[in-house]
Amino acid sequence: MSGRLIGVGVGPGDPELLTLKAARTLAEADVVAHFAKAGNVGNARRIVQDHLRAGVEELPLLYPVTTELPKDCAAYGQAIGAFYDSSASAVARHLDAGRTVAVISEGDPLFYGSYMHLHVRLAPRYRTEIVPGVTAMSGCWSSAGAPIAQGDDVLMVLPATLPEAELERRLADADAAVVMKLGRHLEKVRRVLRRTGRLPQAIYVERGTTSESVTMRLEEKRDDAAPYFSVILLPGWEKRP
Amino acid sequence: MSGRLIGVGVGPGDPELLTLKAARTLAEADVVAHFAKAGNVGNARRIVQDHLRAGVEELPLLYPVTTELPKDCAAYGQAIGAFYDSSASAVARHLDAGRTVAVISEGDPLFYGSYMHLHVRLAPRYRTEIVPGVTAMSGCWSSAGAPIAQGDDVLMVLPATLPEAELERRLADADAAVVMKLGRHLEKVRRVLRRTGRLPQAIYVERGTTSESVTMRLEEKRDDAAPYFSVILLPGWEKRP
Repeated sequence: MSGRLIGVGVGPGDPELLTLKAARTLAEADVVAHFAKAGNVGNARRIVQDHLRAGVEELPLLYPVTTELPKDCAAYGQAIGAFYDSSASAVARHLDAGRTVAVISEGDPLFYGSYMHLHVRLAPRYRTEIVPGVTAMSGCWSSAGAPIAQGDDVLMVLPATLPEAELERRLADADAAVVMKLGRHLEKVRRVLRRTGRLPQAIYVERGTTSESVTMRLEEKRDDAAPYFSVILLPGWEKRP
Repeated sequence: MSGRLIGVGVGPGDPELLTLKAARTLAEADVVAHFAKAGNVGNARRIVQDHLRAGVEELPLLYPVTTELPKDCAAYGQAIGAFYDSSASAVARHLDAGRTVAVISEGDPLFYGSYMHLHVRLAPRYRTEIVPGVTAMSGCWSSAGAPIAQGDDVLMVLPATLPEAELERRLADADAAVVMKLGRHLEKVRRVLRRTGRLPQAIYVERGTTSESVTMRLEEKRDDAAPYFSVILLPGWEKRP
């Protein structure tokens, strides 16, 4: 009798934004797995700190160091693919032994989460369940108190990693938008917002819902330094009172 | 000393998908308000049933019966605007008396939620806080086990209420998409999906995360009857393995 795989969303950062179901799932799991960079606790792991059962078996899945490889080269794809394969095998060994494995994900597991790489490899073979979570973007617009979309608004979620021309084309056509994964792309995003006339409405939020949260109008932000876990919000509703 | 307004997201349907913070907020609130249609308990109110303090004061905000008015006519706008004004006044009376008022919203309060109409009227004048929630769309793709977006995917959230030509133009340009507010628009959405070649990937989910949840490939759904709380998912990630 094989075990059960559960992808558990742990929310945007504030540990109190865990769902009741996530808390129960963590308390009942035999094994709790999480992705992280080597030498780094990882956001998801930090969020659940006070919800792990004493003595629970932990399975850290540590990304290989691939920073020297450009993301569009074949060697990067191979390295990261091999990492997800071996991570899936490590989880599968516990499942084969009949254990319940909870894989924690910041935000929601199936929304831009690393868990998805395990899901596509394991869900066809094992009993699998998803516990949805509050997304990082919900946490950010809540911290900012910014109603994001209403009525007939179209909301676009845009990774800042997109090419500049595509970002511009998409933003010019959005009622409401969330630009995620800012990191070193903030300067580019700012240029695009200026050219599309959207800069005055843009709100910058860093680590929404945590104690280090920062919220400001993007026009007031003087530098282009942004952590990966920051977003830009373009509320759509302002245009439609 | 005036009170505090808290917009509380109560998640997509499963009461266990309430956050710990939402549960605490409800336990501490002096007044719990919710929107509903007359004669109807309302989804948000049903979700929190077991989390209300015994004897807590409740404030149901009942939509006026406007079904005879087309949504784009001025009389509808006036009726619904007057309703939100009087709802805000009813909440403000409690805030002026120093009470904490939790307004519950299905899903997330600032994501297409009725709470937003109170927020824009009251947040400028009263201490206000938002407790984000798991959105209905997260609940639906989790119930379906469908990874929705990854990497550079652009995700579009499209209300089915949009004109057919606009829906088609937007869907043709989406990596991943969620079509919400289906209701009586399913036939139109199906036509658009067929014309854009996206019908084979479309997943239909009704009341995700609840015990009445229905998930199927849209091609397998034989009728065009859909409740308002159903969505169509177009996972983006399938195209990018």
